[in-house]
Amino acid sequence: MSLLNPQLSAFAAVLDEGSFEAAARRLAVTPSAISQRIKSLEDRLGQVLILRRSPCTATPAGQRLLRSVQQLRLLEAETLHDFHVVPDGSTSATIAIAVNADSLTTWFLSALATLHAGDGLLFDVRVEDQDHSTDLLRDGSVLGAVTAIAQPLPGCNVKKLGVMRYVPVASPAFVDRHFADGVNASSLGQAPMLVFNRKDALQWRFVHSVTRARLTPPMHYLPSSTAFVEGAALGLGWAMAPESMLERPFAEGRLKPIAPGRRLDVPLYWQHWAIRSATLARLTDTLQQAARQALRQSR
Amino acid sequence: MSLLNPQLSAFAAVLDEGSFEAAARRLAVTPSAISQRIKSLEDRLGQVLILRRSPCTATPAGQRLLRSVQQLRLLEAETLHDFHVVPDGSTSATIAIAVNADSLTTWFLSALATLHAGDGLLFDVRVEDQDHSTDLLRDGSVLGAVTAIAQPLPGCNVKKLGVMRYVPVASPAFVDRHFADGVNASSLGQAPMLVFNRKDALQWRFVHSVTRARLTPPMHYLPSSTAFVEGAALGLGWAMAPESMLERPFAEGRLKPIAPGRRLDVPLYWQHWAIRSATLARLTDTLQQAARQALRQSR
Repeated sequence: MSLLNPQLSAFAAVLDEGSFEAAARRLAVTPSAISQRIKSLEDRLGQVLILRRSPCTATPAGQRLLRSVQQLRLLEAETLHDFHVVPDGSTSATIAIAVNADSLTTWFLSALATLHAGDGLLFDVRVEDQDHSTDLLRDGSVLGAVTAIAQPLPGCNVKKLGVMRYVPVASPAFVDRHFADGVNASSLGQAPMLVFNRKDALQWRFVHSVTRARLTPPMHYLPSSTAFVEGAALGLGWAMAPESMLERPFAEGRLKPIAPGRRLDVPLYWQHWAIRSATLARLTDTLQQAARQALRQSR
Repeated sequence: MSLLNPQLSAFAAVLDEGSFEAAARRLAVTPSAISQRIKSLEDRLGQVLILRRSPCTATPAGQRLLRSVQQLRLLEAETLHDFHVVPDGSTSATIAIAVNADSLTTWFLSALATLHAGDGLLFDVRVEDQDHSTDLLRDGSVLGAVTAIAQPLPGCNVKKLGVMRYVPVASPAFVDRHFADGVNASSLGQAPMLVFNRKDALQWRFVHSVTRARLTPPMHYLPSSTAFVEGAALGLGWAMAPESMLERPFAEGRLKPIAPGRRLDVPLYWQHWAIRSATLARLTDTLQQAARQALRQSR
């Protein structure tokens, strides 16, 4: 059973799945039934909610509705669970969360595994840069986000998680070749630099801490946490890497710091919608516990 | 120096960087100079080329132009290299390529490292599902793509790379709990399933090879190759994992096949724009070599 009306379920399923066809499969109805439900919801609310394109996305009005629906679904799952009723459709107890790629690769997963083992919770993980994940929170795509932004969004609560420390590293051969005379404006302007993607400013933040000169170093873009660290070890460039991923490559002599003692500390926060939900409270607790073990805690 | 006119350079820089400001930084001019160059290019071509939003994207006309510009830039870099001239701007010899996440995590990087070490080539790697990366090729965002699609796109050449083998795996405890009575419609309908993202159909392909029943298993979405395999080891669900990532977790007893002997072979191809370029030819050779060592070669 579902506590939400069929229109809302259809609306959420289309945005979850990206198309009317996939939503229909999930709810085990025909695509035209989905289409009618969305249309009738739009008529009732007097707003277009979904842009029919590939994938389907929410209009601004649809985003406002999605925020409420995400919260309704969480409370629905909790309510049904209290009554020992299994919600319709497999994903009604799925929690959508945003996390930065480095957290996902290092400490985040153990918390999800704990919650899944305990409560059978399901997760829809979106990977987004820590400086940009609040966009997904704001538009209602996720219920919570690991973010570098300490200021709570309207309607959200924030908890400190700890500090992720980044170290500028490269392969020993790369350091010999490019940084034999030290890390300075001249060497940083010449040495190939790894960048995760267009949103990744960490390397630039390190460069700016060394020099105010406007550099245009050669750059590679490598959007995968594992490939990023491995790319540095293979000599593609220098990179800001999370210290927790460096133990093994340091021990094996495949990577070393390019500027010993230099680092960049990125404080991470857990922002989530401020709703009264036992599930969300447990998620927050478990994330904080995992973060306490894996991230640096400032004094 | 650059062999391309300032309008084309500005056009390419805006699409590379995503904004007029970042393009201006890269070309060391003012944002208003960038804006004027784009405007004059649009006037000359009689088409709007760039959608001014965040990030800036190409219109269909802009995509057509971008395809040509990508090829022009590669040939420009080669021409200048022949004359021992360093092109303007750090990224003019950057090759944009699309690759599926599992290839990037397993075999792809060593080929890039070889090319970078030999020729100083720079790479702009885009991660895209093997069934969808031809979209990036078609719209001119990349010069080549690792794809599951054997049929050459118009204007493209295709080379076989080999076969990536996927094995359905889970933690031993997970297998005991969910698959003690075998892998069938009933157990697959109940056991939590890991899915990389909405485009990942591999788990479904395995399910459909077992049963024609319409199942709605509980699902987690985990869009990171490393986290995906680690999530299975932590008991979040079963998953289709590349065999090359399984050696260690199998040896450590953290993962095991859920259906011994069952697997899914995904043939991978290298599709690239058919232009006469020594760089592209070398890239193709090096990728084929790396693939020959890392992927299964069909008889």
